[in-house]
Amino acid sequence: MRGAALKQFQSHYGHRIEQALDQLLPPAEEAPLNLHAAMRYALFPGGKRLRPVLALVGCAAAGCDPARALVAAAGIECLHTYSLVHDDLPCMDDDALRRGRPTCHMVYGEATALLVGDALLTLAFEAAATAGVLAVRELAIAAGSRGMVGGQMADLEAEGKPRTGGLEQVQWIHDRKTGALITGSLFVGASAALGVGEELPRGFAAKLRRYGDCLGRAFQIADDCLDLTGTAQELGKNPNADLDHDKLTWPSVVGLERSLAMARELAEEAASLAPQIVHAAQEWRGAHSHALDGIDALLQDLAFAAVERRS
Amino acid sequence: MRGAALKQFQSHYGHRIEQALDQLLPPAEEAPLNLHAAMRYALFPGGKRLRPVLALVGCAAAGCDPARALVAAAGIECLHTYSLVHDDLPCMDDDALRRGRPTCHMVYGEATALLVGDALLTLAFEAAATAGVLAVRELAIAAGSRGMVGGQMADLEAEGKPRTGGLEQVQWIHDRKTGALITGSLFVGASAALGVGEELPRGFAAKLRRYGDCLGRAFQIADDCLDLTGTAQELGKNPNADLDHDKLTWPSVVGLERSLAMARELAEEAASLAPQIVHAAQEWRGAHSHALDGIDALLQDLAFAAVERRS
Repeated sequence: MRGAALKQFQSHYGHRIEQALDQLLPPAEEAPLNLHAAMRYALFPGGKRLRPVLALVGCAAAGCDPARALVAAAGIECLHTYSLVHDDLPCMDDDALRRGRPTCHMVYGEATALLVGDALLTLAFEAAATAGVLAVRELAIAAGSRGMVGGQMADLEAEGKPRTGGLEQVQWIHDRKTGALITGSLFVGASAALGVGEELPRGFAAKLRRYGDCLGRAFQIADDCLDLTGTAQELGKNPNADLDHDKLTWPSVVGLERSLAMARELAEEAASLAPQIVHAAQEWRGAHSHALDGIDALLQDLAFAAVERRS
Repeated sequence: MRGAALKQFQSHYGHRIEQALDQLLPPAEEAPLNLHAAMRYALFPGGKRLRPVLALVGCAAAGCDPARALVAAAGIECLHTYSLVHDDLPCMDDDALRRGRPTCHMVYGEATALLVGDALLTLAFEAAATAGVLAVRELAIAAGSRGMVGGQMADLEAEGKPRTGGLEQVQWIHDRKTGALITGSLFVGASAALGVGEELPRGFAAKLRRYGDCLGRAFQIADDCLDLTGTAQELGKNPNADLDHDKLTWPSVVGLERSLAMARELAEEAASLAPQIVHAAQEWRGAHSHALDGIDALLQDLAFAAVERRS
């Protein structure tokens, strides 16, 4: 049954991800109190925790116990949360609602929210270091000016401009602002499976990257569509925010219907790569590695979950 | 002659630090253009590059060729610069002048300056990863909510409040907002000298930490004093900014004269640790390691340079 593998994985690891996050963050009682309380406010209760799940799945797809990537996975969620906190600031998207609650700066003020983001980003790398130096490198490249931050910059600059760049421009932005960290999460997890000095086999890495890229695109197009079709209650944030900011989105270029169809196609392409990833991993790890049982179904479920969602 | 060893070291490595920074940063011609141009605006021309120098000296003190720490050292300067860019933002100190020029947000706008800081912080960890996983860990701990960001938070919260916490509170803030990254720079450099799985010998690490802590305190007290006695031209930023913000500084608690005397004492304590660090390194690396020639004088020069400066 579609979705069963992902549901089982989430019920097994969901609690452990929350626990890893709780242990990674300094206690709210530790000075500076406001900073540590605000970091926890931004992180708990969480959303889907998609990126940590992807990191664990990446580790499993590389033939290892996902638990090995847990701390790094928690770090990736810190990094994702920093990007939301900074993105919501008045000088950026100026959003008041996130995950159904007032945004961090609405509750703690702008200066604290800025520092919350800075601290979460820094903590992400402390956590990633537990998965080795390659994991740190993957995360930094995915999150930096050639990845996520570059995408956010281009996203801001495209606001209110004529759509002369077409789909190519939207895709450039999407690949960086969302796709880079989605693919990066898979690779941080896969890196956690490596011994010192070891590298991911080229064939396996190429398939995993292609999967992540399709998944990331499908996810962000679905996000653009949800902004138009979802309610504030479903989304936990104000809908039509992209319209209000005159953002360059997929539907703003090709319309809602074609966007939904393209997201679907990308999810199907990702799903079709799942058995190939497992095959490449089996070649690498030896054909009968039990660690790879069920990974095919899990990767397929993740692909479809990216587009079949209400939030 | 006091200062000669530092001067020689700087003339040998100053250019190489600039070169490493230039190579680490994406070209200004790479999209997003504004982001990459603004990152370079924030970094060039630079200040004293104290922290990269400390990283190279830390590597030398651990018995290795300083060149091994060059990329990580450039990363530390990126991290330091991010902290200045975010600190200057309107929601923080709202400063218009830095290194003798308009601050990053005055030229590129708040949103871009925010992203410049985020990108530089991220790049710092990509660079630190070249020095190994321990270097990443040292840098993240020094820069995070238990280090630099925690100090900035406490610094902001102390503004305009009665000085009831006394010197203990100022020192708590100084140790985090400035000291942590100064000591951290030495340790990132020393970590670059290690092989995989190797650790710094405990005795060497304890002496280096004590040296860094004294140096960091001396440096920040001197900074507080310069804010009162320097000119805008000397400092490259507006003087009396601490007074204007009613910041909790060393002179605001014990006066200028006693502050200068205490900074001096701390510099002398740091200098007195220099031969002990070299001795511990010789025990570790073997008594006749030529790599350690001149390190004693260098560490002493650095200690006094922290307090004998006009900017």
